[in-house]
Amino acid sequence: MTRYGAMYGPDVTFLGIDPCTIDEPATYQNADVVIMGAPFDGGASYRSGARLGPGAIRTADYLPQDATRPHLALRADGLKDLKVLDAGDVEMFSGDAETSCRNLEAAVTQVAKNGAIPIILGGDHTVTWPDVTGIANVHGFGKVAVIHFDAHADTGDITFGSLIGHGHPMRQLIQSGAVKGNRFWQIGLRGYWPDEDVLKWMSEQEMRSYEMSEIEARGFNTVIDEVIAESLKDCVGFFLSVDIDVVDPSSAPGTGTPEPGGITSRQLLDAVRKLVAKLPLLGMDVVEVAPAYDHSDITAVLANRVVLEALSSLAAKKKYPEDPMKFNSRPLLEGR
Amino acid sequence: MTRYGAMYGPDVTFLGIDPCTIDEPATYQNADVVIMGAPFDGGASYRSGARLGPGAIRTADYLPQDATRPHLALRADGLKDLKVLDAGDVEMFSGDAETSCRNLEAAVTQVAKNGAIPIILGGDHTVTWPDVTGIANVHGFGKVAVIHFDAHADTGDITFGSLIGHGHPMRQLIQSGAVKGNRFWQIGLRGYWPDEDVLKWMSEQEMRSYEMSEIEARGFNTVIDEVIAESLKDCVGFFLSVDIDVVDPSSAPGTGTPEPGGITSRQLLDAVRKLVAKLPLLGMDVVEVAPAYDHSDITAVLANRVVLEALSSLAAKKKYPEDPMKFNSRPLLEGR
Amino acid sequence: MTRYGAMYGPDVTFLGIDPCTIDEPATYQNADVVIMGAPFDGGASYRSGARLGPGAIRTADYLPQDATRPHLALRADGLKDLKVLDAGDVEMFSGDAETSCRNLEAAVTQVAKNGAIPIILGGDHTVTWPDVTGIANVHGFGKVAVIHFDAHADTGDITFGSLIGHGHPMRQLIQSGAVKGNRFWQIGLRGYWPDEDVLKWMSEQEMRSYEMSEIEARGFNTVIDEVIAESLKDCVGFFLSVDIDVVDPSSAPGTGTPEPGGITSRQLLDAVRKLVAKLPLLGMDVVEVAPAYDHSDITAVLANRVVLEALSSLAAKKKYPEDPMKFNSRPLLEGR
Amino acid sequence: MTRYGAMYGPDVTFLGIDPCTIDEPATYQNADVVIMGAPFDGGASYRSGARLGPGAIRTADYLPQDATRPHLALRADGLKDLKVLDAGDVEMFSGDAETSCRNLEAAVTQVAKNGAIPIILGGDHTVTWPDVTGIANVHGFGKVAVIHFDAHADTGDITFGSLIGHGHPMRQLIQSGAVKGNRFWQIGLRGYWPDEDVLKWMSEQEMRSYEMSEIEARGFNTVIDEVIAESLKDCVGFFLSVDIDVVDPSSAPGTGTPEPGGITSRQLLDAVRKLVAKLPLLGMDVVEVAPAYDHSDITAVLANRVVLEALSSLAAKKKYPEDPMKFNSRPLLEGR
Amino acid sequence: MTRYGAMYGPDVTFLGIDPCTIDEPATYQNADVVIMGAPFDGGASYRSGARLGPGAIRTADYLPQDATRPHLALRADGLKDLKVLDAGDVEMFSGDAETSCRNLEAAVTQVAKNGAIPIILGGDHTVTWPDVTGIANVHGFGKVAVIHFDAHADTGDITFGSLIGHGHPMRQLIQSGAVKGNRFWQIGLRGYWPDEDVLKWMSEQEMRSYEMSEIEARGFNTVIDEVIAESLKDCVGFFLSVDIDVVDPSSAPGTGTPEPGGITSRQLLDAVRKLVAKLPLLGMDVVEVAPAYDHSDITAVLANRVVLEALSSLAAKKKYPEDPMKFNSRPLLEGR
Amino acid sequence: MTRYGAMYGPDVTFLGIDPCTIDEPATYQNADVVIMGAPFDGGASYRSGARLGPGAIRTADYLPQDATRPHLALRADGLKDLKVLDAGDVEMFSGDAETSCRNLEAAVTQVAKNGAIPIILGGDHTVTWPDVTGIANVHGFGKVAVIHFDAHADTGDITFGSLIGHGHPMRQLIQSGAVKGNRFWQIGLRGYWPDEDVLKWMSEQEMRSYEMSEIEARGFNTVIDEVIAESLKDCVGFFLSVDIDVVDPSSAPGTGTPEPGGITSRQLLDAVRKLVAKLPLLGMDVVEVAPAYDHSDITAVLANRVVLEALSSLAAKKKYPEDPMKFNSRPLLEGR
Repeated sequence: MTRYGAMYGPDVTFLGIDPCTIDEPATYQNADVVIMGAPFDGGASYRSGARLGPGAIRTADYLPQDATRPHLALRADGLKDLKVLDAGDVEMFSGDAETSCRNLEAAVTQVAKNGAIPIILGGDHTVTWPDVTGIANVHGFGKVAVIHFDAHADTGDITFGSLIGHGHPMRQLIQSGAVKGNRFWQIGLRGYWPDEDVLKWMSEQEMRSYEMSEIEARGFNTVIDEVIAESLKDCVGFFLSVDIDVVDPSSAPGTGTPEPGGITSRQLLDAVRKLVAKLPLLGMDVVEVAPAYDHSDITAVLANRVVLEALSSLAAKKKYPEDPMKFNSRPLLEGR
Repeated sequence: MTRYGAMYGPDVTFLGIDPCTIDEPATYQNADVVIMGAPFDGGASYRSGARLGPGAIRTADYLPQDATRPHLALRADGLKDLKVLDAGDVEMFSGDAETSCRNLEAAVTQVAKNGAIPIILGGDHTVTWPDVTGIANVHGFGKVAVIHFDAHADTGDITFGSLIGHGHPMRQLIQSGAVKGNRFWQIGLRGYWPDEDVLKWMSEQEMRSYEMSEIEARGFNTVIDEVIAESLKDCVGFFLSVDIDVVDPSSAPGTGTPEPGGITSRQLLDAVRKLVAKLPLLGMDVVEVAPAYDHSDITAVLANRVVLEALSSLAAKKKYPEDPMKFNSRPLLEGR
Repeated sequence: MTRYGAMYGPDVTFLGIDPCTIDEPATYQNADVVIMGAPFDGGASYRSGARLGPGAIRTADYLPQDATRPHLALRADGLKDLKVLDAGDVEMFSGDAETSCRNLEAAVTQVAKNGAIPIILGGDHTVTWPDVTGIANVHGFGKVAVIHFDAHADTGDITFGSLIGHGHPMRQLIQSGAVKGNRFWQIGLRGYWPDEDVLKWMSEQEMRSYEMSEIEARGFNTVIDEVIAESLKDCVGFFLSVDIDVVDPSSAPGTGTPEPGGITSRQLLDAVRKLVAKLPLLGMDVVEVAPAYDHSDITAVLANRVVLEALSSLAAKKKYPEDPMKFNSRPLLEGR
Repeated sequence: MTRYGAMYGPDVTFLGIDPCTIDEPATYQNADVVIMGAPFDGGASYRSGARLGPGAIRTADYLPQDATRPHLALRADGLKDLKVLDAGDVEMFSGDAETSCRNLEAAVTQVAKNGAIPIILGGDHTVTWPDVTGIANVHGFGKVAVIHFDAHADTGDITFGSLIGHGHPMRQLIQSGAVKGNRFWQIGLRGYWPDEDVLKWMSEQEMRSYEMSEIEARGFNTVIDEVIAESLKDCVGFFLSVDIDVVDPSSAPGTGTPEPGGITSRQLLDAVRKLVAKLPLLGMDVVEVAPAYDHSDITAVLANRVVLEALSSLAAKKKYPEDPMKFNSRPLLEGR
Repeated sequence: MTRYGAMYGPDVTFLGIDPCTIDEPATYQNADVVIMGAPFDGGASYRSGARLGPGAIRTADYLPQDATRPHLALRADGLKDLKVLDAGDVEMFSGDAETSCRNLEAAVTQVAKNGAIPIILGGDHTVTWPDVTGIANVHGFGKVAVIHFDAHADTGDITFGSLIGHGHPMRQLIQSGAVKGNRFWQIGLRGYWPDEDVLKWMSEQEMRSYEMSEIEARGFNTVIDEVIAESLKDCVGFFLSVDIDVVDPSSAPGTGTPEPGGITSRQLLDAVRKLVAKLPLLGMDVVEVAPAYDHSDITAVLANRVVLEALSSLAAKKKYPEDPMKFNSRPLLEGR
Repeated sequence: MTRYGAMYGPDVTFLGIDPCTIDEPATYQNADVVIMGAPFDGGASYRSGARLGPGAIRTADYLPQDATRPHLALRADGLKDLKVLDAGDVEMFSGDAETSCRNLEAAVTQVAKNGAIPIILGGDHTVTWPDVTGIANVHGFGKVAVIHFDAHADTGDITFGSLIGHGHPMRQLIQSGAVKGNRFWQIGLRGYWPDEDVLKWMSEQEMRSYEMSEIEARGFNTVIDEVIAESLKDCVGFFLSVDIDVVDPSSAPGTGTPEPGGITSRQLLDAVRKLVAKLPLLGMDVVEVAPAYDHSDITAVLANRVVLEALSSLAAKKKYPEDPMKFNSRPLLEGR
């Protein structure tokens, strides 16, 4: 097996699951999910450091890294009830965004083509462009909805002379036709970006963006239910992109562009759980974890749990196809 | 007075209260509460550091350490309206869990026997086994309910070859008969531990565990009210065990096993206030504060406030026996 | 222009806006707002460090410091739709509180007299005494209401031999007649300070202080609406004083006297937005940011956003005089 | 005993020694040394935080705080072979430098008058003005030499409108006549302060300042020997003032004005040991420890050891009057 | 292969070398060196945290973890020119020092018996007792010299009721006869421990301890040469025990008991290189790295390099048996 | 003036000097030195973060940022006795190394062509390729010597698919002919990189690399004197490239690839002072400062001082052409 392994640091897999190799589909035959790292931060518009995100997300946990994680609320094990493998990192030299994105797109396409759901550990948000393009390459341009948790719309125009970068992926995906504008669902936006020109462009694309004041006014759960009800029209499934900065900086200090006033980690975890339980997941990324700015690993652990929520819901769908959420919100122990 | 003092660092008392000595009951005659440190972290399953918790909890405050703390909402002073003394630390060599637990149990028993409520500052959660056993030694096996705030159930079976450790105290207390399984009330559980075998055992013991998804669905206050209504059947009072990791890591980064998605510090403080105001407190511990992982002391200050909430409610019960919560939730200043 | 510049660190302006000079009113003719730094921490009763607050608040942002900040929810730009200038710091030697306060009062008076709204970046809370006195010098003693977000009442009597300090400004303002006691609105109080004597004095002044248990019971929004409805009787406008420690330490660790159990950053931002949109703002300060205790700048960024919320609301009032909040809580993008 | 105690934090003594009270000389009768805290940072020209220095220096140690410290090289115990007491802090409100300095000078004078050597734990370097003045009040103006370890000359003229501050003490001491200019010995100067005007003034006072390039060229030990040989002419003894920033920032990051290229901690410890062993010590201060900027307490521990070196040498002088350094540099264990 | 793996965190090997299993000697047949982790900190007398040392030492490096490390000065590759394997961690529950030490001794004995040199990554210094005992079990009691770099003698008597702990290993080794007292060589001692009683015992054992003042006076290189010349009399080789706190806290903040005034990292690396090149190494440990107190991993990287220096010298001995140091101190590139 | 300003953070100049604009040579006519930032970290092989180096190096100082810095040892002011301007940052998108390097080379060429000495603040070491190429464009290929302080040779072959990166600049400069291999002087190399193939290539280029063991054996000053004597043969001057990681990680933790065992900050400062005083400086860069990994700014301050040492020596050469070092190593104050 000619595994590339980790671009930075020791070659570890997500919580100790078995490895596989992108270029050798036999190594992930019948896999439900293939995790891969996208250790790229050349696209950040401010603080870099997300290149060390994949290693941190894979290992940030106080429990033994033994490839088992029974979810207390769902009563399913995302690592044991599914076949989940870790393909290591895609080589992404941060000084060459274009080549890096090409490499990543190829890897995602390859995995999706072979029937597994790719989960990509970023890296800065640049990676969502190749991530979703790879999924669309397999499932059809215009056939993938994107549900996008973020403080920022990431629909910016050229910055620092480039359209590849962590402020642009959503624009690129719409412009290429990979995703239809009206199949974009953005949750958690706030702050002072973008400006009116970009907002006008977003409107024209018919994107649906929930800014925090709307979320506060209508209720977070209402918003999530609305997205579940409406997001997948004409699509075969959705890509879930979680920028960790959607969460308030108190819970996610370890990121490049922290914007105060975000959702809580509890809200994010519950939303991911529900979305994946209710809608067909085609791919996912968790991005913008920058360990150098983290404290006691709280951001990395949160990102690790975001991945586990998705895996747990997938496992629950397999285990309890009639109702993956049947144990959720119920007393933990029977008889009481 | 042959006071042992502090095991680590300078010999300080909780916010400057007077000292006493465990082995000399005369020194704490008529005390309402005796605080003691349990500087042990040999039982941690991951990050150690909680041995330095007692010193941090005692002193983490920006106010003068002058043995007075008037509670703004309750209008009672937990340090002045009560007689609260600090016995210093119990000697607990982290490399010898068994001897350490024996020492601590003896100290707690001694204090409870002499009529004071012991409040133990951990230390890792291992200490709750001797803490509650000591209380039960005095108030009767099976006569003490345990209300337990934690991200984790701590009912695990043998780990690293030992049943003494921070993952086991609740199992030990039930197995020994010190506490009946159905008098265990756990609030805040979440994440990926324990597995089905342990959950099954917990069910068989008839424990009542509120996982976060149930808490979210039913409301935190509802849960607390339910615990208040039901917890003390057949018991003479309750032991309150607060693992600081019940709170979200954003508010309590300084701990060994942080699990994202916890309750807020506001919720914890209010719950402690109400529980102690409404039910007879027999003993209490606050555990798993690991200063090396803290930032700007926010975890230690929170733990300090958790102790003060309990003391303030005890003081309010003494001062306003008709309704300890009479000032709570009211406008702070009269006439407006 | 004989600009004083920054007392500590490089001479930077708030997010890159143009500079002006206090002593030369022509430099801020027609300005809507003049920002100035008050780099003083000689009045702190515990941790110092707030002297470095002004520089941190001015620059803590991941976006380009290009004097434009379009507010996503309000659709107004606090830096472009208004004329906002930065006068640099007032010289405030921390070892001489009296002279420092005199300097600051003169600067605030000067700016207010020339028709601009002063926004002062603290510094410890001592500065609110000269800040509001300066405003009252211009708008009339007794004519200014104070809306005050804080964990602490700051109405203390002499401490360390002085009545100038961060625990006293509200007492001084009432005693001098600058502000009537019953025009003081305090939001977010909690913890263990002050004692009964001071509370009695506060009652006698007819202050209105919302302690956290009242806020929890009645709802934060209800409280804010009540303040909007009642605060300005007999006054021409209000001064907004935001002590960053009103927010929970999880979101604002970088401060001198962190008290657990505070409001969220989301709540603070929304409240500032609404208060400024609904009531005439005469002046404002944001205080107690101590960068040495911050982590990844999350406290400084929050303080920066508090200033921007106020500026954005002022801009929205200018741009949409009929309803500055018209876009707030609405779907971000038209047509969806 | 009406002990003031600690201005900030818990009332602890230096490594657990017995307390005394400045205002009650009977409490330190026959004491060899009285330690006191000077928790003042209002005089800092940049980062504040040194007010928390005294508490940190007193307690920063991994050994039990049991009032014994046998010095391995000198074979004398600075805490047991001498009578050393801790008077707690002098009240020094940082917002009032003048009153604070007056309080401190009175305390130092009082202690010295009663025959004990005062050791003052700063606090910023402002405190050396009252420290040495207090000593000179007792031993005679012009009769005290000052040996001063520092990166900075601290002979500056008025700054921020004041001549009280951490950049001025040496100027004030010379101007008042407390210390003759030619009895000032400064070791470790470097960097970019002061300018030519101040250097000219220093030359005129006939100060002797060893800049790092001279120290490197001639050797640190040579310089120390020269100071020992020449410093005390016409004086009855010396005051030792150690600004922790004399040491390279790698060993002392926890300070307000770190200047790269300093001496090593080894050099500082050895120099203090030798100077105190060879010359009569009249008083000492250790200043500019700012815990907020420290890491893992390495700066505070170093400052603690600087104090202990002086105490150990004093003890060695008492124990081995013929040669206090007799064990130094010898094989630790006899027979080998 | 029934590998235990890592006790904490992901199962990684030292810089990516191949794994082996202690209980299956076939897996390390013909190995030159077997590395193992001793993740124990139950024996620490103050700060804990060294249990996470093994994982940190294995991976703290910016270079690819690819099992090759060509030493620039020695021109030999410690990982490629030798057969070095990593056995993972020995299970050492910190709450049970006795069982833990027994497990470790068995593992070391097993490895040494099979002909490989064990290198143990601590863990607190407690582990040196089982480490050296294991070596002596194979090479003979009294036949192993110990060269011990440390700030502390670690020859203490019972503490906290136990003789197992990080202050006692050297006493235990001498008392058991594993090592003769006069074959103990301690380098770097300083500070305020132990007291005269213990020093007397050490003298009686004829230990040779170089305190820093002797090292300064005679020169570090002289001391190392003396140790090389004299240490091995009557012994077949030496055990090298490196407590990272021998180095000054500036270079090794990440440790439990930092003592200012230590040797430099340069000195430690050169000494390890030379000792291993000149004398037969039987075993080695590197202890007391506590990552929670480290900064930017500088302590962990240093410990990693200490291991690599030993491995590089072993490789150089194999590659250049005539003179392992032949390239050392020479111009790096030929022809210049 | 169409100044680009700062790529990240506020637009500040080096310690408050006047700004200029690269594209408008009139703005730096007659300048002795033009400083510019190269905020690029796309070429780092491990930790990123050096893109924030320029801002940190410009402002990391406790003294007023007032464009004056009188050097204590040299008695010359690098900012006042010379005309030094700051051109702001060159736009360098980290995701496009090629374009970034082209932009930087053009900027350096432009400045050098107009007669000023460019000083570039990195950024990662990638920037030295365009830096020196820009100098050679003006002074002639093969006419520039490079004196290079670094832990690493930076002569690596293709990594991550690219020859642009922080491990390659020296190779590129030799291959392009910009610098002759035998005019390369590397000081401070150590550790485990590069391998034999690269060393062989370096030998063939006739580079001169001083590894730490040679430096230790011969003495640092001897090495510097040798470089001064021999380096400039056939050249018109030298480029000084300082990778901050040449210094031991204790003094420079804030960097991407820290290698233990480096030179001291004192040695680096003295060497830069002497080299610039003795040899004609054509250009300079200071690279690899990564603020996210720094502590209390000690690395950034050191880098700031490295720049100041060079400027001070240039000023001294102008002021004391007969002997720029005449005051160095002399008693600071005349008459003593």
